Amino acid sequence: MTTQKMRSLKKLEIILDGAHLGFATDLIERAGVKGYTILHNLSGKGSTGFHAGQLMFNEDDVLVMVLAAVPEDLVDPLLEGFAAFFAEHSGVVFVSDIQVMRPEKFGR
Amino acid sequence: MTTQKMRSLKKLEIILDGAHLGFATDLIERAGVKGYTILHNLSGKGSTGFHAGQLMFNEDDVLVMVLAAVPEDLVDPLLEGFAAFFAEHSGVVFVSDIQVMRPEKFGR
Amino acid sequence: MTTQKMRSLKKLEIILDGAHLGFATDLIERAGVKGYTILHNLSGKGSTGFHAGQLMFNEDDVLVMVLAAVPEDLVDPLLEGFAAFFAEHSGVVFVSDIQVMRPEKFGR
Repeated sequence: MTTQKMRSLKKLEIILDGAHLGFATDLIERAGVKGYTILHNLSGKGSTGFHAGQLMFNEDDVLVMVLAAVPEDLVDPLLEGFAAFFAEHSGVVFVSDIQVMRPEKFGR
Repeated sequence: MTTQKMRSLKKLEIILDGAHLGFATDLIERAGVKGYTILHNLSGKGSTGFHAGQLMFNEDDVLVMVLAAVPEDLVDPLLEGFAAFFAEHSGVVFVSDIQVMRPEKFGR
Repeated sequence: MTTQKMRSLKKLEIILDGAHLGFATDLIERAGVKGYTILHNLSGKGSTGFHAGQLMFNEDDVLVMVLAAVPEDLVDPLLEGFAAFFAEHSGVVFVSDIQVMRPEKFGR
């Protein structure tokens, strides 16, 4: 991938009850992340396998996924904010590596 | 990422005809995975590039994506189950590496 | 993962205004990619953090995500096509590593 300049970022996928969407987007914006994408009307069930014995969602809950690509140094502050929230509410945060296309005309 | 304890898991993204959603979630639950998320009303076309000459979906099909985060030792049993299914039905399974936030209050 | 043969591919996640969905799918098909999946009715805001000061989407825009798994040698040609498009339009392309299940009955 030499032609296009790519930037290595971390992808956060935050899945939570749609009623709390504003919490997630506020937290992301206050961390200085300039943008995000929202997937609506998801459903889910169970505990994602790591909250043993604790039901996270019912099949009737309407979930959302907030997708944000952030620099690595913002991951920890964001996870701290979400950890406090998910101590009280159901949901999960996935973190993974991505490359994002950054055309030369856009600086930072 | 020192503040929050993260757990390395495998993300499975299973895309299949919505009519077969129950097969996918049953298989996941029987493998011992405690939860999953469902994205509804996707569409798709073609063969994802590896089923040469075989059309997987029409543009009119309503697809779903089942998203599950599983420990690595469950990947193989799950793929075996899905391989048998996808030998007869259209769809695809993506596997990728993710980190999942695990607040300290949740053990395993 | 020894039982199922897996193939390493690159996952492209292209997020753009739904009005331009046809551009994205045409570009993917012309590159020789045999299939893709479309997630509809997403929303989004801001600049994904790397287009400083440039608003990409309003909250009222209806976005789509086109998801395609492609061989690594197709990533660059595809990104070239998308770079030209995104020089004029809002949106983003994420690239990440995935493994795709390839049942033995399907060759390539």
